[in-house]
Amino acid sequence: MSQQQSTLYVELGDRRYPIHIGENLLTSRGLLAGLIKSRQVVVITNETIAPLYLDIVLGQLPDSILVTPVIIPDGEQYKTWQTLGEIFDQVLVARHNRSTTFVALGGGVVGDITGFAAACYQRGVNFIQIPTTLLAQVDSSVGGKTAVNHSLGKNMIGAFYQPTAVVIDTGTLSTLGAREYAAGLAEVVKYGLIYDAEFHAWICANRSQLVARDGDTLRYAIQRSCEIKAEVVAADERESGLRAILNLGHTFGHAIETYMGYGSWLHGEAVAAGMVMAVRLSALRGSVDAELVVELEQLLVDLGLPVWAPTEMRSETFIDLMALDKKAIDGQMRFVLLGALGAALVVDDVTEAELVALID
Amino acid sequence: MSQQQSTLYVELGDRRYPIHIGENLLTSRGLLAGLIKSRQVVVITNETIAPLYLDIVLGQLPDSILVTPVIIPDGEQYKTWQTLGEIFDQVLVARHNRSTTFVALGGGVVGDITGFAAACYQRGVNFIQIPTTLLAQVDSSVGGKTAVNHSLGKNMIGAFYQPTAVVIDTGTLSTLGAREYAAGLAEVVKYGLIYDAEFHAWICANRSQLVARDGDTLRYAIQRSCEIKAEVVAADERESGLRAILNLGHTFGHAIETYMGYGSWLHGEAVAAGMVMAVRLSALRGSVDAELVVELEQLLVDLGLPVWAPTEMRSETFIDLMALDKKAIDGQMRFVLLGALGAALVVDDVTEAELVALID
Repeated sequence: MSQQQSTLYVELGDRRYPIHIGENLLTSRGLLAGLIKSRQVVVITNETIAPLYLDIVLGQLPDSILVTPVIIPDGEQYKTWQTLGEIFDQVLVARHNRSTTFVALGGGVVGDITGFAAACYQRGVNFIQIPTTLLAQVDSSVGGKTAVNHSLGKNMIGAFYQPTAVVIDTGTLSTLGAREYAAGLAEVVKYGLIYDAEFHAWICANRSQLVARDGDTLRYAIQRSCEIKAEVVAADERESGLRAILNLGHTFGHAIETYMGYGSWLHGEAVAAGMVMAVRLSALRGSVDAELVVELEQLLVDLGLPVWAPTEMRSETFIDLMALDKKAIDGQMRFVLLGALGAALVVDDVTEAELVALID
Repeated sequence: MSQQQSTLYVELGDRRYPIHIGENLLTSRGLLAGLIKSRQVVVITNETIAPLYLDIVLGQLPDSILVTPVIIPDGEQYKTWQTLGEIFDQVLVARHNRSTTFVALGGGVVGDITGFAAACYQRGVNFIQIPTTLLAQVDSSVGGKTAVNHSLGKNMIGAFYQPTAVVIDTGTLSTLGAREYAAGLAEVVKYGLIYDAEFHAWICANRSQLVARDGDTLRYAIQRSCEIKAEVVAADERESGLRAILNLGHTFGHAIETYMGYGSWLHGEAVAAGMVMAVRLSALRGSVDAELVVELEQLLVDLGLPVWAPTEMRSETFIDLMALDKKAIDGQMRFVLLGALGAALVVDDVTEAELVALID
């Protein structure tokens, strides 16, 4: 491998797996073929990604194996029970057995639904993540959270199921739309806030290079984000403790997504506005300086992200929607706040009065 | 506990769980309430079982917790993707969070679909098995295999997901229909054949007491069956080796079920006919005496079970249907045969010619 490629590992014992990061990995000789051990492969992608990268991926696979491409519609609104059922129909018609490998080629929606399909197909088959959006590369492709949405809540049906490998080709970001790209940067910002003040400072200093999609800047941002995520997931795979800090801004963000209907706001956009709310709540509680809220808003605006929830969403709307959120335990809402810049903590003692003060 | 109750364990490390066996355990003071740690419970049962046992189970739970009963139609033909979706709808409408507990109250269909629902709901919640059929008590409630069927194959979508406890009230067998009861005995017979020649001899000697549902005979039959299953599952949870022996008769049996349409033959009936085929194939290969086939047929007939596949199913029908079976690896069909009475083995070198000789 050249110097522009790197590999890090998610340390999960006998389910340890590599994350390969680099430009043009999709055409890197033998990489994909070497990762697939089976004689059958299902490649799941969407209508937007298929014309761009499907043939490239198929071209890397030996002719001798059975390959079934499954193309789903593009968008969070298709991350559903019904789409999942249609995937199973196609895979069963093509007669894949339980030694097959599922490959997710696309963004977070493709990765989440493919991972869940792999977890359930014949009670579990191997799968490989090839994330093609920044959000998927720095967040959803790593860590084994898979799911589909339900009209009553996001990611309500799913599984913890780890891939056997993640292949991040940073070259795929060149075709990513501006909104989707910015949405991915929201998660990059999150890692600095919750875990690494130095990384946060680096992001602030390099915001214009990030917006310009400078290759080296981007590679470092992705690598550091994946390192942090891998470390947190290795420490707490099933989110019984530490892993919850990855949800900074997500409790508010999920409420925004549910309220607006999936697909209206991008996940990363909702998380951006949600992070501002969480950091502002942290400041109201005195654990971080109010100046950090202002700085964060400016950073997110510079990166092309929203910093306010829709104005028609009042505190009672948030409270109602958040009560159903998976992070609510026995009716008690939990929030990820900042104890300090670079150090998140989970609290369950936020009062409704505080939420009213924050939102209304 | 009285002498008529016993507890054994499935040894799976930190997921170790108890199987409680005894008469009237459902009304045993504090047993169920003690097993449920959450403040929310979903009890999934079917239209046949609900009038018999639902109120009894609900009566054991503290008034202070949220209890949502979900009643599904009775029958293998409802063990589907669609029923599963309807379960999630009801559980989400009632706002269960991820600390809820799912309870399966019913036979194998209820247990399989509830276990899979528990595996997927909010990426996994606790669940407890209360099997009310003999088949579920000696087989499907123990070992963590959960699934729904697909029109192209049985148990194609599912998960390995262990319960936190199994509660077997042998009293529930008094209300079981004769066909369902006999179907459960097929699996009891299986355990002797694959694992324990002495148990097989005991079954043969006690066939009339088994048919008469004699309490002591039944309790021992269930306990020994669960012990064998627990031992095999502890050694090989995900069926990478030994666990496959539990499928004696199932490769042929699944083909019969698929061919006839789910719900026409009971699972245990198909397994009975399938076991005769597997043991006859073992005899054709010389690993067991041909006399065992005759003895087994007589035993199964005495227990009220079929010993022949439908006559219209020819070898090519079996071969075609079995090729899709999950036990087929990369197109090679695998069969569980007997190396000797009480010692099963898995083979993958059965030829089509042998199947033609066996079936046609």
